[in-house]
Amino acid sequence: PYIEGEVEAVRVNIVGCFETGPGHWISAVDRTPYHTEFVRSRLTPELRRDIRLLKGFLIGSGLYGAEIRVEGISGYLSELLVIGHAGFTKLLRSVAGWRPPVYIELNGSIGRAEALKQFPNAPLILPDPVDPARNVAAAVSTTKLAEFILASKLFIRSPSVSFFKPPEVVMAEEGDRELLGVFFKVAELPPDILWGEIKHTMRGVARRLEKEGFQVYRAGAAQSGNEVLLLYELAGLTLPRYELRMGPPVWMENALDFIEKTLSRGERAAGPWVEGERLYALLRREDTEADRLLRRWIEAGQVAVSHGLKEELRRAEILTSRSGLFERIKENKDFREFLYSLLDGVSPPIRHLGRRS
Amino acid sequence: PYIEGEVEAVRVNIVGCFETGPGHWISAVDRTPYHTEFVRSRLTPELRRDIRLLKGFLIGSGLYGAEIRVEGISGYLSELLVIGHAGFTKLLRSVAGWRPPVYIELNGSIGRAEALKQFPNAPLILPDPVDPARNVAAAVSTTKLAEFILASKLFIRSPSVSFFKPPEVVMAEEGDRELLGVFFKVAELPPDILWGEIKHTMRGVARRLEKEGFQVYRAGAAQSGNEVLLLYELAGLTLPRYELRMGPPVWMENALDFIEKTLSRGERAAGPWVEGERLYALLRREDTEADRLLRRWIEAGQVAVSHGLKEELRRAEILTSRSGLFERIKENKDFREFLYSLLDGVSPPIRHLGRRS
Repeated sequence: PYIEGEVEAVRVNIVGCFETGPGHWISAVDRTPYHTEFVRSRLTPELRRDIRLLKGFLIGSGLYGAEIRVEGISGYLSELLVIGHAGFTKLLRSVAGWRPPVYIELNGSIGRAEALKQFPNAPLILPDPVDPARNVAAAVSTTKLAEFILASKLFIRSPSVSFFKPPEVVMAEEGDRELLGVFFKVAELPPDILWGEIKHTMRGVARRLEKEGFQVYRAGAAQSGNEVLLLYELAGLTLPRYELRMGPPVWMENALDFIEKTLSRGERAAGPWVEGERLYALLRREDTEADRLLRRWIEAGQVAVSHGLKEELRRAEILTSRSGLFERIKENKDFREFLYSLLDGVSPPIRHLGRRS
Repeated sequence: PYIEGEVEAVRVNIVGCFETGPGHWISAVDRTPYHTEFVRSRLTPELRRDIRLLKGFLIGSGLYGAEIRVEGISGYLSELLVIGHAGFTKLLRSVAGWRPPVYIELNGSIGRAEALKQFPNAPLILPDPVDPARNVAAAVSTTKLAEFILASKLFIRSPSVSFFKPPEVVMAEEGDRELLGVFFKVAELPPDILWGEIKHTMRGVARRLEKEGFQVYRAGAAQSGNEVLLLYELAGLTLPRYELRMGPPVWMENALDFIEKTLSRGERAAGPWVEGERLYALLRREDTEADRLLRRWIEAGQVAVSHGLKEELRRAEILTSRSGLFERIKENKDFREFLYSLLDGVSPPIRHLGRRS
């Protein structure tokens, strides 16, 4: 619910809100004028500069933004962090020593124990001075918080302007890495809704792959126009030809059933045999390739995907690094950069290290 | 310490022992005359016949013998089991309902709770009537006990003379199963000492393979003259080309060390990156083949092998189903039968099932 326009090449959003008193919020953005007021009341010229420094620092490591796609640090959180720590350098010194879960007292403190109880599972807690029932850092993921801690440690040990430059895309070698890519089209949706569904689906596919025996080293998602790419790096793109099936202990009622069923299975390769107190058998797998298996699971509805992407995923294109994945993205800059950055795999804060030398 | 000879094609052992009173044993076999006396005092013509039946039944499922190679049921234990259960059929009905750990009261019972305390980890406990401090079933492994339970269940549901015939070797197809074989020569040693070392070494190799990322489906050992074969069926004979290395959480002191060391490693393929609160990196493996890796670990002393087999193992021949394992054992009947029975993988008690039809 906002208007977007451009003023002299700067993109401007106009977001309407209700004029309410604190605590009587009607829409999600009604707090904003109070946020502005709070921040303004605490600002000094030095703090203004330091907030700009922090925001540059966060952009430089891909940590800026509370969107679901980023799961990073919002503008308001940046401002409160600098105000709360009385400056950029002091903040970074503090962050370098953080260990999650982190609780930050600003004003009207509720105490660490109370905060951990009120905001369970949040890696970073900073109660909103305008509304203490709300955690300003609710959107920050553990990974992004950890990258912030790491960036601070690296910067303090060896400060450099490179930390304020957005990470470059490093062209990594394709090599013989085992990648699985799922391409699908998406409808136009507000980014946070779409990215909530993308991330949920990304994890669902990873969980299914792992459950069936694939080892998932990394997972990532990228968007290019109305197309999404889920990318997985696996230990291998094929499962072993044979699968060990564990049966019941011999003293169970159903031990003889397991034996009879197994002996009559066409895919039985060996067994049943006894090891310890249990029965085991070796079955031959019909399909062993990740792309074929994933397509089958999606068609059978055996992957926990977001409801909104179900149909899109059924029509997905599934490619591997052996079947033409690199060829498919050759012409798409967004996907290519995303793929290269996953192949390179160096966290943005760490990438600044190399650039210094 | 015994004399072996042959009398009309029957192998005869003469074992000397000391004449002592119960409880004043000097050598391990001093109990034997008392065992004989105890068993004789309880025998009836029916029990004699039933003991022969049980021994035939156990031989028919490869469960007879307390040697370390077999880890099964000794002659004396067979006799006590039949006497204690007043016959073969009653015994098998009882065994079919067993669930380990099993405690059998004969005479001078010590009670179940006391027995479990006195013989911890023993799947089957039958205190020696001649010496209650000794478990007659000490040599029985969980696997063999479970096979005994299974054989009893199968026999009771559908009795057949086939259960009294030793299991035949089934010629299994070689197929594309992933096998690793370790051949080595051994010196002449008492079988129980040698087989203690063989089993210890067999497990040591399996543990090392698993620790490094191989999935071991089955392991077995066979002897042919002065040669031993350790055989492993694996999910795959190669490890993934890349290895995920987990680093410390970012808030640990050594997080920056991990980053610097990883960045300087020649085998670094990707990373370090942050996932959750931890650092990770992807390293390229130099060797990925099971046989090459195992040879290297043995040479580096990184496999927990029996001391007595250390030198033999250094000179071992390591072959896989891809590198000539089948060719190597083609001429050796013992190894061939052992390999086929592992490929077939059907427990002897279960093998009787198929034979009936």
